[in-house]
Amino acid sequence: MSKRSLLLLPGDGIGPEVMRQVRRVIDWYTRKRGIEFAIEEGLVGGCSYDAHGTPLTDETMARALAVDAVLLAAVGGPKWDNLGFDKRPEAGLLRLRKEMELFANLRPAKVFDALVDASTLKPDVVRGLDIMIVRELTGGVYFGTPRGITDLPNGERRGVNTQVYDTHEIHRVARVAFELARKRGNKVCSSEKGNVMESGLLWRQEVIALHKAEYQDVELSHMLADAAAMQLVRNPKQFDVIVTDNLFGDILSDEASMLTGSIGMLPSASLGATDANGKRKALYEPVHGSAPDIAGRDLANPIAMFLSFAMALRWSFDLQAEADILENAVENVLNTGLRTGDIMQPGMAKVSTSVMADSILREM
Amino acid sequence: MSKRSLLLLPGDGIGPEVMRQVRRVIDWYTRKRGIEFAIEEGLVGGCSYDAHGTPLTDETMARALAVDAVLLAAVGGPKWDNLGFDKRPEAGLLRLRKEMELFANLRPAKVFDALVDASTLKPDVVRGLDIMIVRELTGGVYFGTPRGITDLPNGERRGVNTQVYDTHEIHRVARVAFELARKRGNKVCSSEKGNVMESGLLWRQEVIALHKAEYQDVELSHMLADAAAMQLVRNPKQFDVIVTDNLFGDILSDEASMLTGSIGMLPSASLGATDANGKRKALYEPVHGSAPDIAGRDLANPIAMFLSFAMALRWSFDLQAEADILENAVENVLNTGLRTGDIMQPGMAKVSTSVMADSILREM
Ligand SMILES: CC(C)[C@H](C(=O)O)[C@@H](O)C(=O)O
Ligand SMILES: CC(C)[C@H](C(=O)O)[C@@H](O)C(=O)O
Repeated sequence: MSKRSLLLLPGDGIGPEVMRQVRRVIDWYTRKRGIEFAIEEGLVGGCSYDAHGTPLTDETMARALAVDAVLLAAVGGPKWDNLGFDKRPEAGLLRLRKEMELFANLRPAKVFDALVDASTLKPDVVRGLDIMIVRELTGGVYFGTPRGITDLPNGERRGVNTQVYDTHEIHRVARVAFELARKRGNKVCSSEKGNVMESGLLWRQEVIALHKAEYQDVELSHMLADAAAMQLVRNPKQFDVIVTDNLFGDILSDEASMLTGSIGMLPSASLGATDANGKRKALYEPVHGSAPDIAGRDLANPIAMFLSFAMALRWSFDLQAEADILENAVENVLNTGLRTGDIMQPGMAKVSTSVMADSILREM
Repeated sequence: MSKRSLLLLPGDGIGPEVMRQVRRVIDWYTRKRGIEFAIEEGLVGGCSYDAHGTPLTDETMARALAVDAVLLAAVGGPKWDNLGFDKRPEAGLLRLRKEMELFANLRPAKVFDALVDASTLKPDVVRGLDIMIVRELTGGVYFGTPRGITDLPNGERRGVNTQVYDTHEIHRVARVAFELARKRGNKVCSSEKGNVMESGLLWRQEVIALHKAEYQDVELSHMLADAAAMQLVRNPKQFDVIVTDNLFGDILSDEASMLTGSIGMLPSASLGATDANGKRKALYEPVHGSAPDIAGRDLANPIAMFLSFAMALRWSFDLQAEADILENAVENVLNTGLRTGDIMQPGMAKVSTSVMADSILREM
C-alpha cells in the first residue's frame, strides 16, 4: 500500500505548538503500528500573509488538493485584524473549504465524563451529552453573490450579502447527516428559519423530500434556528445529529461546543464528496481558535488537535481501531486527573502542553 | 390630558388568556391611579387568517399605526404551519414591525432572584444576570430583496435571501443601544460576522464611527456572532447591552432568554423613531410563543405579558413609578413562592394563570 499523504498546516498562535505535539502522535503510529505517512507542511493564515502577502498561496492550495487529508491547527490573531477581506487569515481557511469542496463540516459536541463539572451548565443537563452538528460549509451567505460594500448616492454606504442554496447542495449535506445518524442515535434534526427565509423553506422541503425518498428509517424533525439556540441550552440531550446551513451551523455549533465547557477538547472534520475511487477530500481541525494570548508558552490544550487526527484516522484512512487507541488514551489520561489550564479544576494536576502530550503518548 | 390609546392584539394559542389578565392590570391603573386608556382590540396571526384570510387586515394595520402603543400576546400554531409565506401568522407580525418601522427590538434577559434555580446553568453563572439585547428589527435578511424560490434549468430549485444594511439603519439602532447603556452598565457589545460578511463589516465600521462621534463615554466592544453565542453560555454576566442585526438578534436573544430558565417571564419592546412631538411608535410583546399545547387551560404564565405592559408604561407613557409598582408586585409574588407550571420548582405552590394574576393584582 502506498503511503498515506498528509498536509500539516500549523497556522497561527498556538497552532504550531499543538501541531508539533500531534506530529509525535503521527510518528507513534509509524513506529509502533507500521502505518506510514508522507508528511508535508505549509503555511496558512497570518503566517502565510507575513511570508507571502496572502493567507494561502496557490502552491499550498494545490498541495491541499493533492493529499489524502489536511490537518489544520488554527488561524488568526489581532496582528492581522485590520487587513482587507481577502488578506485576512480567515480567507485562507475559506479558500481551502471552497476549493476542496468540503461541503460537510462535522462538529461533535461531546462531554467527557471526567469533565462534566467544567461546563457552566448543571451536571444533569450535560452528563453524557453527545451531539453531532453537520454544518453546510461551502454555500449560503458565506459565498453567495452579490456581496460587498458600496457607496450610495445619498452619501451613505450599503453592505450586502446573499444567501443562496440549490437543491443538490442541501441534499448532499443532508445525506451526510442521515448516514451519520444511522451509525449513532438514528435521529436528525434539521434547522433553518423557514418561517422568514425562503432559502430556509427550500432547505426544509428538500430535507423532507430526501428523507422520504431514501432515509425513512431515520427519525427526522425540524426546528427553527432560534428555537434550536434555546433548546441547546434547555435540553441539549434531546439532539443526536443536527443538520443546518453554513451560518446557523457556525453559531449553533459554537454554542453547542461551549455547553461541554471544554472547547480545547473538540475536533472537527470537513469532508468533500466521495469520488469514483471511494476517496473524499478532507480537512481536520480543532474547534478552538489560535488563542494568541497564550501562544508559545506551552499552555495550550493539545487534545482537540489529537482528536482531530483521530477523526482523520477514521474518516480518511478507515483505521477505526487505531483511532480508538488515541481516543481511549485521551480519556484515560483525563481520568487520571491531568489537566491543561483551560480545563483545570480543583484537586486536579495542572500540566503543560508537552506534559499532556507525553502522558497521552505513554498511555497509548 | 387626552386618553392614552392602546391596541390589544391577543393573537393565537395562549395569547387571549394572558391578554385577558393584562386587561385587568390596565383596569387597575384606571381605577386606582386615574390613568385612563382608550382600548381597542384586533386580530393578528392565525385567528385573523381564519376570520379574514390574511394574518393582518389593512384595517388593523391602520389602527396599529394610529394608537400610542400596541400590546401583542403571541401568534402561530401548527394549524397554520402549511400556509404560504404571506399567509402565515408570522407574516402579520412582520408586517406590523415593518409598517410601524419598529427598528429597535429591546429584549431583556434578566434572572429573578427567586428563579435562579430554574436555569439549566449553574446558579453562580446566572445569579443577578441582567442583559439587554437590542436587535435591529426592520432590515437585514428578513426583508432584503431579491428573495424567493426559483426553478433552475437543470431541474433543481434555488432559494435566495438577501442581507442588506445601510448606514442609517445601523446608526439608528446603535444609537438606541448607546442611549440605553448610559442608563445601565454603560457598556455596549456589537455583534456581527464581519470576518466573513461585508454587511457585518459595514455594521462594525458604522458602529465604531457613531461611537467615536457621539458616544465615547460608553464602553464599546465587538464580538463575532459565533463567539457571542459561546460567551453567552460561558460567562453571560460579562454583557450589559448587546446590539446586533435582525437575524443574529433573533438567535442570540432566544439563547439569552433561555439562560434565565424562565422565558415565561420575559417581555420585549419594539420601538420606532421619535417624531417631532417626542412620540414613537411602539409594540410590546412577551418573548414566549403561543404555546398551543397548553392553550385555553388556564396554565400559561401571564407575567411576561404583564412585564410587557410595564415596558409600555415606561417607554410609551413615561410612567416610570407606575411601571415600578407592577414590576415590584411581580417580584414580591414570586418571593412568596407562587409559580405557574413553567417555572414550578420543588417546595413552591403551583397556581393557574388566573390565580397568578389575582395575586399580582392584590400585591399591587
Ligand atoms: C474563522 C471563521 C471564518 C470561521 C467561520 O465563520 O466559519 C470559524 O468561525 C469557524 O467556525 O470555523
Ligand atoms: C415569529 C418570528 C417571525 C419571529 C422572528 O423570527 O423574528 C420570532 O422568532 C421573534 O423572535 O420574534
